[in-house]
Amino acid sequence: MNAYPLLEKIDSPDDIKKYSLSELEELARELRGFIVDTVAANGGHLAPSLGTVELTLALFSVFRFPQDKLIWDVGHQAYSHKILTGRRDRFHTLRQLGGITGFPNRSESKYDAFGVGHASTSISAALGMAISRDLCGRRNEVIAVIGDGALTGGEAFEALNQAGDLGKKLIVILNDNEMSIDKNVGGMSEYLSRIRLDPQYNRAKKDVGNLLMSIPHIGDKAYRTARIVKDSVRSALVPGSVFEEIGFHYIGPVDGHNLSLLQDILGRARQMDGPVLIHIHTKKGKGYLPAEQQPNKFHGIGVFDRKTGECPKKQGAPSYTSVFSKALIELAEKDTDLTAITAAMPSGTGLKAFGEVYPARFFDVGIAEEHAVTLAAGMAADGRHPVVTLYSTFAQRAYDQLMHDVCLQNLPVTLCLDRAGLVGADGPTHHGAFDLSYLRHMPNMTVFVPKDEAELRDMLATAVKMDSPSAVRYPRGAGLGVPLSETFHDIPIGKAEVLAETAEGQAALLAVGSMVHRAQQAAAILGEAGIAVSVVNMRFVKPLDTAVIDAMAAGHSLLVTLEENALAGGFGSAVAEYLMDSGLAAKTQLLRLGLPDRFIEQGKPAELLELCGLQPEQIAATVKERLK
Amino acid sequence: MNAYPLLEKIDSPDDIKKYSLSELEELARELRGFIVDTVAANGGHLAPSLGTVELTLALFSVFRFPQDKLIWDVGHQAYSHKILTGRRDRFHTLRQLGGITGFPNRSESKYDAFGVGHASTSISAALGMAISRDLCGRRNEVIAVIGDGALTGGEAFEALNQAGDLGKKLIVILNDNEMSIDKNVGGMSEYLSRIRLDPQYNRAKKDVGNLLMSIPHIGDKAYRTARIVKDSVRSALVPGSVFEEIGFHYIGPVDGHNLSLLQDILGRARQMDGPVLIHIHTKKGKGYLPAEQQPNKFHGIGVFDRKTGECPKKQGAPSYTSVFSKALIELAEKDTDLTAITAAMPSGTGLKAFGEVYPARFFDVGIAEEHAVTLAAGMAADGRHPVVTLYSTFAQRAYDQLMHDVCLQNLPVTLCLDRAGLVGADGPTHHGAFDLSYLRHMPNMTVFVPKDEAELRDMLATAVKMDSPSAVRYPRGAGLGVPLSETFHDIPIGKAEVLAETAEGQAALLAVGSMVHRAQQAAAILGEAGIAVSVVNMRFVKPLDTAVIDAMAAGHSLLVTLEENALAGGFGSAVAEYLMDSGLAAKTQLLRLGLPDRFIEQGKPAELLELCGLQPEQIAATVKERLK
Repeated sequence: MNAYPLLEKIDSPDDIKKYSLSELEELARELRGFIVDTVAANGGHLAPSLGTVELTLALFSVFRFPQDKLIWDVGHQAYSHKILTGRRDRFHTLRQLGGITGFPNRSESKYDAFGVGHASTSISAALGMAISRDLCGRRNEVIAVIGDGALTGGEAFEALNQAGDLGKKLIVILNDNEMSIDKNVGGMSEYLSRIRLDPQYNRAKKDVGNLLMSIPHIGDKAYRTARIVKDSVRSALVPGSVFEEIGFHYIGPVDGHNLSLLQDILGRARQMDGPVLIHIHTKKGKGYLPAEQQPNKFHGIGVFDRKTGECPKKQGAPSYTSVFSKALIELAEKDTDLTAITAAMPSGTGLKAFGEVYPARFFDVGIAEEHAVTLAAGMAADGRHPVVTLYSTFAQRAYDQLMHDVCLQNLPVTLCLDRAGLVGADGPTHHGAFDLSYLRHMPNMTVFVPKDEAELRDMLATAVKMDSPSAVRYPRGAGLGVPLSETFHDIPIGKAEVLAETAEGQAALLAVGSMVHRAQQAAAILGEAGIAVSVVNMRFVKPLDTAVIDAMAAGHSLLVTLEENALAGGFGSAVAEYLMDSGLAAKTQLLRLGLPDRFIEQGKPAELLELCGLQPEQIAATVKERLK
Repeated sequence: MNAYPLLEKIDSPDDIKKYSLSELEELARELRGFIVDTVAANGGHLAPSLGTVELTLALFSVFRFPQDKLIWDVGHQAYSHKILTGRRDRFHTLRQLGGITGFPNRSESKYDAFGVGHASTSISAALGMAISRDLCGRRNEVIAVIGDGALTGGEAFEALNQAGDLGKKLIVILNDNEMSIDKNVGGMSEYLSRIRLDPQYNRAKKDVGNLLMSIPHIGDKAYRTARIVKDSVRSALVPGSVFEEIGFHYIGPVDGHNLSLLQDILGRARQMDGPVLIHIHTKKGKGYLPAEQQPNKFHGIGVFDRKTGECPKKQGAPSYTSVFSKALIELAEKDTDLTAITAAMPSGTGLKAFGEVYPARFFDVGIAEEHAVTLAAGMAADGRHPVVTLYSTFAQRAYDQLMHDVCLQNLPVTLCLDRAGLVGADGPTHHGAFDLSYLRHMPNMTVFVPKDEAELRDMLATAVKMDSPSAVRYPRGAGLGVPLSETFHDIPIGKAEVLAETAEGQAALLAVGSMVHRAQQAAAILGEAGIAVSVVNMRFVKPLDTAVIDAMAAGHSLLVTLEENALAGGFGSAVAEYLMDSGLAAKTQLLRLGLPDRFIEQGKPAELLELCGLQPEQIAATVKERLK
């Protein structure tokens, strides 16, 4: 820790109050070094956290935490916050099993006022805390920090709308770095740009005052008009009139890397009544050149070389995302009705390449999953076939739109769910643990679960030919490295694939998606122990291939379902329903393996699978035990 | 039809184009009479549809449908649209089984461009159609009509944000009647009021132009300043700058009952490029005095007397809603940490009374279910216990917030789901058919299902004492008329109530909520046929009372689950999981009764229950058949 002499003296935010401005500026440099060091070794959300170093220091020097409440939207920018609130010495465990979590987390620190991970929740939560404070007659401040990206999410608008009306004391800091993970989009983003970029727009403020004063007062009417003009001009030329109109005091734009200015502004905001929005302008990746130059690459990143910013070359199989990306481009060549929609994740979902090849058919809607899905429904109602690609966990935002706009109207929209199952270091806010459960009860929906990246290609090709709603869910990270065909092959809807069938088998493993190859490995282990089992790649969670279940039930006393999804309501649940409904249960046992009924922590995927008993050796042991 | 001589000649929107302005005005009167007549006899969404008569006529006289696409947000204001698009003669079947549906519906008419029911989807869908049109090189117009209430929903903002940026031709008509179902709320609503109500704000527009022209040009700088001022003043004093700033052309406010003005404005909008927002001001209930005076009562209404506006006095038991309303007020007297949140449904949810007694603890957030739930999570994180009351179907909007903000943080928020199960005439967009399925797989959640209104009181009292997430789901309409206790009794968490136990029973009926008394009735029918069955009020879907299932499985060969919820993933699914997991399935059969895997149509609740085989006689017959 000798490299960080100031930082090592800070054990709580109060320690920061002792430092002079120049010491705080030095501390900012130390924090950046410490963050870059740690993330280079562990991976993490680097660029967002580098952008908020001065803001964090200014907040901690002006406010009193944890009495005051600080809510970081999404929370990927809160590393300085974590380091300065007693987690410095454990910060090297960032995002590891049992270590410091990647996002603010109420169970980790009293300074983490609200747990986050998904975007656009901070103003709602902060308003809730401001209301609670007033009900209790307390006087603490409540501060939400939200990025311009997260501001594209409708929930943030819903909260601004109520907060502006209620008039409760609340400070919203709009951390405008012109980015979501990729470049930010939308009319609001354009508006913020105009405020930031047009110096005339700001300078005019002063000039207008003088100008209006110089207008001679010719009678009452002109005077009154002048007054109206003046009031209106003020509210127009003070940038931020959009926020002013819905009831916020707007302050900004402010250089978010100027510590003394931030302290001054925050101090002033503290004195003000009612809801205040402070618009600060920051640079994502600030202070670490590779991240400044490629803020999207360094938004969330794995291990990298601190000196060069280079990540170790990925070995092995292409990722599911990249196979999806390429397949969709190939399919769209012939199928000109195909369109692609992302919610602020062009890079993460692999749709960026699609947008480069087919710019007119590619749409980044911002962090707006609800709109993404209804937009798709609108396109589908007009004859297109949209492919909406979301991370499984974020698709939860669009549950109602999938149900009400897509499934109820039986529209041909294909939902591609990337990062389904356990995602690893991002932890419980980001695991895609529930999609099979929430999609399975949607009428008209077909749910494809590819066993590997080759099947992903074929399932995507099949789904986009359907005339009804479909979803394809696949895991984060590398595929299995199987050969990829040049062409596409239709997958019969609702038909499973029997991978291994043993006439004398005692158990049949029915697996979906990522669990298929683990089932095969488990079968191999069992085979070595003299226990022959059948293995079925179920391919579909809906419609369920009941014929293959009938066949397996006929030949085996035990069926084992395997899924990287919540057991409650998921694939195994569908099999349980069928076995009970059909009466097969009388002579067939069922062992359901999947995610337990709790939120799964962060860690390496292999560690998490082991926690859930889903590694091949564990599966084999569990099946063996059950067969005794 | 003689009372409606003009109306009876209209079979498609094209017929309207033949009419003169004065004939159209007469037609507006006829339409209002026809709508009031029909709704007085059938019930329906009266006040919203009376507010849009002139708008509908103006749209139909200016645009060419169905080539042009018209999307009504929510759709409760679209009765004129339905009547004028070939559904006049069947309009008397409105909201009845097999009849005209209460909302636009793609399967009902080619003029219904997009199916609606939930709020705030129209701009997203319209943008999707505008994109599709441009991809195809067509030239049709796309028009979304959205109320100021629906504009409080975040999805509408998400769509405006993208539409303003994309620049595609799109007409959004903001139908501002100052109402959701009740009085509209929020900063945006205040903003719209200012535009509407301040005539100076509008008049100043012209004056300012003149004023600025009179400023002498003193050199370049002053000229440039004047130009900036002028541009800015224009965008400020043109009301609607908020919409202008995010990329829309704003026109308004316009009197939405002035037909010729509407025709003129719509004609102009048609000629404009890019996204246009037309802000019209209408009166909810226009033209029918009782509805003008009580627009919330007449928003959605049952049968009423056309002359007086009086509804027949409700006989019989109090509604679940009113029992909930009273119970929460009683509980809040002692428990000062209780707060109550509604999403624009103070009347519908029964929280209006709470707001009158405890105004400081009552919050109407607008049509903003996402924000409602995260707001509650924020309050709970600060020590309050919020009760969020939503209709089951609308709670679907907050799936992610329930999962990510409430359950993941294990916060004490109580979700009250009114209108759970089949709601009747509002049909598939409004049935609460999925809540047990989507709540059951949320970790940390407790799901209460009261068998009657007395149990609702006790369950609510129990839920608000919990230190973790809870949900209480109850049906639309009248309770069973059971006696209500003055006091509250705790319900043991996760414990079922055995209502009838027969030692020699062949079947045990395990029921939740509204199905409990139907199970009892079925048991009585079976008893008369000599078949003794046990009946259990399961009370909880999560945690499941596995001890009672064990006991029932020990004494009965057949278990029957009964729920007014989707079978997929619901209560019966939980029982199926348990029977398979525990091995009880080897000797216990399961019959799951509930809603099938399709969307259920509109109709009387009794008719719909019968369609689903859930009436007591049907249950008895099915059980009898199965026991053979």
